[in-house]
Amino acid sequence: MSVKFKKLALIGIGLIGSSIALAARRQGLVDHIAISTRKPETLAEAEALQLGDSYTLDPAEAVRDADLVILCTPVGAYKSVMEAIAPSLAPGAILSDVGSVKEHVVKVLQPLLPEGVQLIPGHPIAGTEHSGPSAGFPELFAGRWCVLTPGPEVDPAAVEKLSAFWRAMGSQVECMDAAHHDMVLAITSHVPHLIAYNIVGTVADLEADTKSEVIKFSASGFRDFTRIAASDPVMWRDVFLTNRDGVLEMLGRFLEDLAVLQRAVRTGDGPALEAMFTRTRAIRRSIISAGQETAAPDFGRPHEAPPAAEGDEKA
Amino acid sequence: MSVKFKKLALIGIGLIGSSIALAARRQGLVDHIAISTRKPETLAEAEALQLGDSYTLDPAEAVRDADLVILCTPVGAYKSVMEAIAPSLAPGAILSDVGSVKEHVVKVLQPLLPEGVQLIPGHPIAGTEHSGPSAGFPELFAGRWCVLTPGPEVDPAAVEKLSAFWRAMGSQVECMDAAHHDMVLAITSHVPHLIAYNIVGTVADLEADTKSEVIKFSASGFRDFTRIAASDPVMWRDVFLTNRDGVLEMLGRFLEDLAVLQRAVRTGDGPALEAMFTRTRAIRRSIISAGQETAAPDFGRPHEAPPAAEGDEKA
Repeated sequence: MSVKFKKLALIGIGLIGSSIALAARRQGLVDHIAISTRKPETLAEAEALQLGDSYTLDPAEAVRDADLVILCTPVGAYKSVMEAIAPSLAPGAILSDVGSVKEHVVKVLQPLLPEGVQLIPGHPIAGTEHSGPSAGFPELFAGRWCVLTPGPEVDPAAVEKLSAFWRAMGSQVECMDAAHHDMVLAITSHVPHLIAYNIVGTVADLEADTKSEVIKFSASGFRDFTRIAASDPVMWRDVFLTNRDGVLEMLGRFLEDLAVLQRAVRTGDGPALEAMFTRTRAIRRSIISAGQETAAPDFGRPHEAPPAAEGDEKA
Repeated sequence: MSVKFKKLALIGIGLIGSSIALAARRQGLVDHIAISTRKPETLAEAEALQLGDSYTLDPAEAVRDADLVILCTPVGAYKSVMEAIAPSLAPGAILSDVGSVKEHVVKVLQPLLPEGVQLIPGHPIAGTEHSGPSAGFPELFAGRWCVLTPGPEVDPAAVEKLSAFWRAMGSQVECMDAAHHDMVLAITSHVPHLIAYNIVGTVADLEADTKSEVIKFSASGFRDFTRIAASDPVMWRDVFLTNRDGVLEMLGRFLEDLAVLQRAVRTGDGPALEAMFTRTRAIRRSIISAGQETAAPDFGRPHEAPPAAEGDEKA
């Protein structure tokens, strides 16, 4: 089976949409890329970057005759997008998305799905803290997992074709139940983002003097949290509005564990602290072995050379 | 004033100690480096790496005639080290350290300090998640801050000489009160480490199936937390045993803020979530502007190229 699609419609063209456009083009997976956005300035930016072959503010026009449609907007926009495109979706077309939650997506899209259209929600587990059409790059998905959550009614050939599309862009593909996806992602992604946003917020509330010191001394740990707390705010708002149960369940476990650790600090329980801090190393080693993280110290961040001159440096 | 020291004694030779040895040597700041460790195998490793000029298991021997002594062991070992070296410290010598807490260090070292020895506690705000003598590299301190917390009784010339030593290794130097240091580091470093250790621990407790999925899908945020949760467990145990007040104060603020965010998730308060997620971006921009973080997406982590072949990829 060929992985080639005649027309790919991308509704929304941020970090993920633009990376799909670049990767699909480079790998020769599509004949035509149609791009649609809500805002004219985003569309103009996508066109200036030559991400597609056609550009329109009308999503219905973008999806007409498309055999692959991928929603790349924040999840909160799916309902109005689906209402606009449903009448124009071609029979036999695959409708997919890249949203970070999946059960809610099925709930919103399924009732509006025309007969003969194959709904295969998707989630590429890849990203950076940058957003917008210029943030994309074709290597984004290489070595990363893409989760697909097709319902039992979906044609297996369609699932295989979409899987091949993602594999051709460098991803590994796994199919699972939408509810299970949401629970796993709550702990791997949603709660980490919530915590990162929270601690950066705690710092933002410090008195101005202390805040400037926090910025100076951020290399001691804090700056690691600021990366994911710089991610797209609207996208993340929608994640927390639509995976509430998964997030509250995993946040509850995190808070229980933190209460235990807090007590160990308060009571000065050295053995408990050391035991806790020892067992966490194995998890990182597993992630590095699984090819999902670099083994280079400090994420491979650049380290500048010390001053060349020797002796008394007062610059 | 020359920055040159005749003899530098490093007590303990992990990531920080070995980086000082390499940087001080490269910049020509010392004539002789004496290294002492508690464990014979660590000393043998330091010698095999040629980090120093002399090696001994007896810290008193290492500090004899040294004009600069830097304690690089976990903070919990300071008391016994100080008891061993105090009688051998040379008059006029500078005694410093690299521990992540400072008020406790003064409390432990000051009572045992011989007349004429200048106690200048220090904390280079630099590190990686790796530990041990082979983890060091001479660029570690370049562009990073080093905090010194001398008491009012210390000779300003000694403070200036130690500052020049750190500047020559590439650091910027700031002097402050030990208690203030501990409060600032509680939020920039200690609480972030506690939270990172905690969430990695929460994952370690998940059922085996889910845990393997967390590892696969860790690129969605979680892996950022595993780096600092892979730091040296004994060193971090000692931090939490010795900066309890600072940690509990800042952890309290973090938990108050998290309760607000948790409620916003529970009640589906989109505007509050979006507002929270928007204001945190400015903090990261400030850290990048201050030269304490890379502007490259994803910390500059390497991204592999997608497969070269085009079309159906089933490998």
